Amino acid sequence: MMKLLRLFSSSRNQLSKRHSLSLDAFTQSTSFSTARQNFSAKGRIGDKVYAPFSIYKGKAALSLTPVLPTFTKLDSGSLVVDRRGSVMLKFMPAIGERKYDSEKRQLFALSVTEVGSLISLGPKDSCELFHDPSMQSSKSGEVRKSLSIKPHADGYFISLTVVNNLLKTRESFSVPVTTAEFAVIKTACSFALPHIMGWDKLTNEVPRGIEVHESKMVEPQLLDEWER
Amino acid sequence: MMKLLRLFSSSRNQLSKRHSLSLDAFTQSTSFSTARQNFSAKGRIGDKVYAPFSIYKGKAALSLTPVLPTFTKLDSGSLVVDRRGSVMLKFMPAIGERKYDSEKRQLFALSVTEVGSLISLGPKDSCELFHDPSMQSSKSGEVRKSLSIKPHADGYFISLTVVNNLLKTRESFSVPVTTAEFAVIKTACSFALPHIMGWDKLTNEVPRGIEVHESKMVEPQLLDEWER
Amino acid sequence: MMKLLRLFSSSRNQLSKRHSLSLDAFTQSTSFSTARQNFSAKGRIGDKVYAPFSIYKGKAALSLTPVLPTFTKLDSGSLVVDRRGSVMLKFMPAIGERKYDSEKRQLFALSVTEVGSLISLGPKDSCELFHDPSMQSSKSGEVRKSLSIKPHADGYFISLTVVNNLLKTRESFSVPVTTAEFAVIKTACSFALPHIMGWDKLTNEVPRGIEVHESKMVEPQLLDEWER
Amino acid sequence: MMKLLRLFSSSRNQLSKRHSLSLDAFTQSTSFSTARQNFSAKGRIGDKVYAPFSIYKGKAALSLTPVLPTFTKLDSGSLVVDRRGSVMLKFMPAIGERKYDSEKRQLFALSVTEVGSLISLGPKDSCELFHDPSMQSSKSGEVRKSLSIKPHADGYFISLTVVNNLLKTRESFSVPVTTAEFAVIKTACSFALPHIMGWDKLTNEVPRGIEVHESKMVEPQLLDEWER
Repeated sequence: MMKLLRLFSSSRNQLSKRHSLSLDAFTQSTSFSTARQNFSAKGRIGDKVYAPFSIYKGKAALSLTPVLPTFTKLDSGSLVVDRRGSVMLKFMPAIGERKYDSEKRQLFALSVTEVGSLISLGPKDSCELFHDPSMQSSKSGEVRKSLSIKPHADGYFISLTVVNNLLKTRESFSVPVTTAEFAVIKTACSFALPHIMGWDKLTNEVPRGIEVHESKMVEPQLLDEWER
Repeated sequence: MMKLLRLFSSSRNQLSKRHSLSLDAFTQSTSFSTARQNFSAKGRIGDKVYAPFSIYKGKAALSLTPVLPTFTKLDSGSLVVDRRGSVMLKFMPAIGERKYDSEKRQLFALSVTEVGSLISLGPKDSCELFHDPSMQSSKSGEVRKSLSIKPHADGYFISLTVVNNLLKTRESFSVPVTTAEFAVIKTACSFALPHIMGWDKLTNEVPRGIEVHESKMVEPQLLDEWER
Repeated sequence: MMKLLRLFSSSRNQLSKRHSLSLDAFTQSTSFSTARQNFSAKGRIGDKVYAPFSIYKGKAALSLTPVLPTFTKLDSGSLVVDRRGSVMLKFMPAIGERKYDSEKRQLFALSVTEVGSLISLGPKDSCELFHDPSMQSSKSGEVRKSLSIKPHADGYFISLTVVNNLLKTRESFSVPVTTAEFAVIKTACSFALPHIMGWDKLTNEVPRGIEVHESKMVEPQLLDEWER
Repeated sequence: MMKLLRLFSSSRNQLSKRHSLSLDAFTQSTSFSTARQNFSAKGRIGDKVYAPFSIYKGKAALSLTPVLPTFTKLDSGSLVVDRRGSVMLKFMPAIGERKYDSEKRQLFALSVTEVGSLISLGPKDSCELFHDPSMQSSKSGEVRKSLSIKPHADGYFISLTVVNNLLKTRESFSVPVTTAEFAVIKTACSFALPHIMGWDKLTNEVPRGIEVHESKMVEPQLLDEWER
């Protein structure tokens, strides 16, 4: 297999533009706080980081950003996951050569299990996911979103169709993703998965110590559900 | 392969209910502290985080939560792993449409090696694990737990049988897990593994420096067990 | 398959020399700050860490170092990725037995997607990447770099050719990389990928808590793009 | 494939004994500091953590522990890796039923590349590694260590032979490692690899901000070795 990658140039100014645009586009949808916040003297709650992985193709652009879970605090001070995180997909239509309109964007939030579906895709596998944002409410069926991931010669087509029966609209996006770009998506989503599940909160704290005595004998280890 | 995922809706209130239930169910069994604790002004020891990965199916629900290792502190201030962590599996029987009874839950704590067994399962592999919580004690054989993971068309059946010869009871749970859900389990358990082993405590600390002098020559590196 | 690894010895002094040399070589190109910095009382901005992975072969040496993304801060205090990071490859020609000339080094910065291309290479795959540092400027075409990764019996050849049409120079480097060394490259680049994308900034912060009430019922979870 | 795991029981007291023994055994060879240290008010330099992954079999025991790299500090405050870390293997002979003699232990430190060799082993691959701790010194050839990893029905045999031509001794250890145990070794070593390379020191620090202006146009990104 031979892969050829092309690079595009743009001025620093254009870069800044793009990102401020991304910011504009992501503000209502996706963001995550920076770890800096945890350690900063001020610890400003407002600090956010926007680091979407964006794929720009001829007809549309696709960007991915992890969305962290939310937690509910109990009287005990303990926390339970209130809503799991997701990996937010954002599609934008092209409106010119390498120009994309973020106001016409459509979002699709991959749940933890849907991320599992994506990262378990083999080279020949395809996958289709359906969302009805109003399922089991009176608005059920008003809007239907379907995301499909289908293999092609070098990589996958990632396509989103959004049908709004109220507005009688139907929007479609299709982004060809190379094997290399899909490897980035798989690796980044595998990295993000424990975070959007809340499993990254494993602590490094060290428990209060108990003195122990020396010995020369070695014993294997005990496992017992009941002592836990 | 074509995968279809279905989503269920529920009000925020029900969500909170579920989680407080989960908390109720996990309190005696599994929890891990939040990293927040390390940095918080107060550093409340009581802070816990509950982020189980839960799979809700027709006859039973299965949830997984990592359990961190415990350490013993020596006079030197050094710490040794006292008991390795695990990934705790919790099974709950269904008692109605998408309703599960956490009081009838059964637990099975996957050891480090058993997690290795799970994450090394190929698509056609199966795996059976036996626990006798009282092995090598006078109570040996009173209770026997067996967990089996068996492949099906799209994913695996994860089943637990608990036989209590004292109470003359036999409880069985079987949860069909999709390929996508199993990919989440494998990825999350692979992430958790170094943590439950205690290997996540690799430090980022920077040693006291030694001045060095410049040069234009490059030499490969030395390896020597004896200098360590 | 049988793999034999040979080790080379060198004095501590030579080691220091090599690293100060590496520092010299990397200063204009690659570095990343140490996490220590975040926690240190002084928090000196100047602190950098140089930890290249270097492969020393007969005709040339290759070393890899991750380069972190840069961020732009907005009035809101939010941050957007200004430039994504990369994995910087540095080639140096041999100028004697296990001696390499860092002044004749050539650099090739693997973008996020090019890292994806590298980590998705199968044992029989090859990959070729082209860079024109001045693309779309008046200097376009003056310098052309091409990196190729081609399989051999045990591993890959990683080769760089730099053609400078202005200086009428053509430099070539080729480093045979063993399967073991390539496994290190793949694993290290997979680890680095979320960092050079800026996705490692997922926070461990805990949100302000909301009190919840107990219940015995369990409900699956809601997913909705519109509520995000 | 059907895997059966057996568990051994031991009292808490025996557990403590084992670990204090491990400590005894590891003190001269392997340790890593706890992250806690970075955040603790006192930040005691002496704090160490011992979390070996130990496999206890009939004739010998094998344990693995990551060893972090050491750094050299320059006048600039920058740090360079002085010596890369390793994964230390410790073999101990059995001296009774599930009793092992740590005083007769032998060590083998897997280098970064040798860890790459281990984690790239396929189910049918074998691998042999040779160390001469005194290579290229006057003592060269006095001691020779060879580690072999060979596949068997369910997993691998990991064997170490140490020949000391001075003392005219020859010690051999062979530990059968199940597929599940090897999966733990591979996963844990893959996790440890970036740490022993020093690549875990990627920072979460946030750079000083620059104000940017809004726009509705989106541009792809620039990559340029020369600007770095």
